Amino acid sequence: MIPQQNVKRVAVQQVRGGQTRQQKDLLAIEEPLEIRLAFEEAGRRVEQSVSITMRTPGDDFELAAGFLFGEGIIHGYDDIDQITYCVEPGKEKQEYNVVRVQLRPGVRFDPDRLLRHFYTTSSCGVCGKASLEALQIRNRPVLPQDRLVISAEIMPRLAGTLRQAQSVFEKTGGLHAAGLFDTQGNLISLREDVGRHNAVDKLVGERLSANRLPLFDTIMMVSGRSSFEIMQKALAAGIPVVVAVGAPSSLAVELAREFGMTLVGFARGDGFNVYSGAQRIAFGA
Amino acid sequence: MIPQQNVKRVAVQQVRGGQTRQQKDLLAIEEPLEIRLAFEEAGRRVEQSVSITMRTPGDDFELAAGFLFGEGIIHGYDDIDQITYCVEPGKEKQEYNVVRVQLRPGVRFDPDRLLRHFYTTSSCGVCGKASLEALQIRNRPVLPQDRLVISAEIMPRLAGTLRQAQSVFEKTGGLHAAGLFDTQGNLISLREDVGRHNAVDKLVGERLSANRLPLFDTIMMVSGRSSFEIMQKALAAGIPVVVAVGAPSSLAVELAREFGMTLVGFARGDGFNVYSGAQRIAFGA
Repeated sequence: MIPQQNVKRVAVQQVRGGQTRQQKDLLAIEEPLEIRLAFEEAGRRVEQSVSITMRTPGDDFELAAGFLFGEGIIHGYDDIDQITYCVEPGKEKQEYNVVRVQLRPGVRFDPDRLLRHFYTTSSCGVCGKASLEALQIRNRPVLPQDRLVISAEIMPRLAGTLRQAQSVFEKTGGLHAAGLFDTQGNLISLREDVGRHNAVDKLVGERLSANRLPLFDTIMMVSGRSSFEIMQKALAAGIPVVVAVGAPSSLAVELAREFGMTLVGFARGDGFNVYSGAQRIAFGA
Repeated sequence: MIPQQNVKRVAVQQVRGGQTRQQKDLLAIEEPLEIRLAFEEAGRRVEQSVSITMRTPGDDFELAAGFLFGEGIIHGYDDIDQITYCVEPGKEKQEYNVVRVQLRPGVRFDPDRLLRHFYTTSSCGVCGKASLEALQIRNRPVLPQDRLVISAEIMPRLAGTLRQAQSVFEKTGGLHAAGLFDTQGNLISLREDVGRHNAVDKLVGERLSANRLPLFDTIMMVSGRSSFEIMQKALAAGIPVVVAVGAPSSLAVELAREFGMTLVGFARGDGFNVYSGAQRIAFGA
């Protein structure tokens, strides 16, 4: 989870009912993390920056591994030789805003995977294609359709469990949470971050590094809304059921239906909405 | 605002108190938008994809202009010759997921601005630098420090006004909102999107296209949390006061303090917290 040193205390002027007073307030730390990939190309050692993400420090190695997996740059933890924090030459002290991922010798890195956001073509690109077609869905396992059945009764418990597992600070709403649950609704792991996608990358990256993918027998709950990006990361990890406290986007629902995922939204109190894959939920007597 | 056709109706299984029923639910549409830049380089016409963002359709030209301004790729609306939707050769029908921004002849485009996320160096990059130093703050005007004074009494009204201005659908929580207010708390404009940063780009892009930047006499309110990215976009547009319904991140507060911005968080009911720049707020008798 988020260590205490990753929460920052600042002075704040608090206004309530027209009265102001000086207070201390806790903030979630947001800092840039640069992910660098080191690999061999034609016998030459190459190091390349592949992402700068604004994240909450903590679980940085898992974040890097999960990000690379979600982007389809690595296909398993075996593709990684080692992950380290970058150290400036001549300095002993490690710095914590650059993570260097060394690929195993022989693992090919295709820069096109990165450059998909920045490519140059003469045609219209995604123009005219259906939205899902236009987006590269990476690392997509075929989800089992008849294996996982979860009781509708556990659904309302997930949000409460997630919230309970968060620390007092995180309950104040500064951080997004992503929780992984088993089919009985027991929490397996929890990760938090100022960015929703980072929380999911940390969660997946940890399971990846423990060689537990694909996560066919799990449920992922996220504290906010569900979007294309969240669903794509869950799909890549083989997570068949995604439950969100908030609303899904249209593309989150389309992706869930296209790839046979179960998508639940507005999971609050004793209610929830099933947008896709209701066959995995048992509505018992 | 978001046109009705940008809301999608889907079938949903609604579960309340153990009872399920089939319902129709409205979803915020999320679709990819590719922004392409067309410019001249050494007498040659070049077209380059600069971003694919997941957005809610609507105000796409403003989104593109606001994005390019926030990234420091353009410095004013005059830098743009025209903005069009991309049309496939031989087709008459326009497609709405690619926007082409033609730069005015003579306007130079520096690809390094884009490639900052993907550069290759042999040193440690942002490693070891203070977080704000490491991030390029682009297009930063010097904000007047003594010009804008707003009454603390208008603060609690902003969130209500923003919410009232949203349609019934948007109140359901599928979309983020960014609203621009004058110093009396009157709403100037409102933009919505599945992505917070997109809502801000749309808001700024509209004012940019009306030649109204810098926005020194305005307040921006956002529906969610405040982050580095939101503050950076506000700063570039010259917006001195940012009010958020949710919590700020540590870097949002650092940026606000460094560049003399006023940052308010947790603006709910009759309360709010001032994290930076309290001198712009008049706490009247």
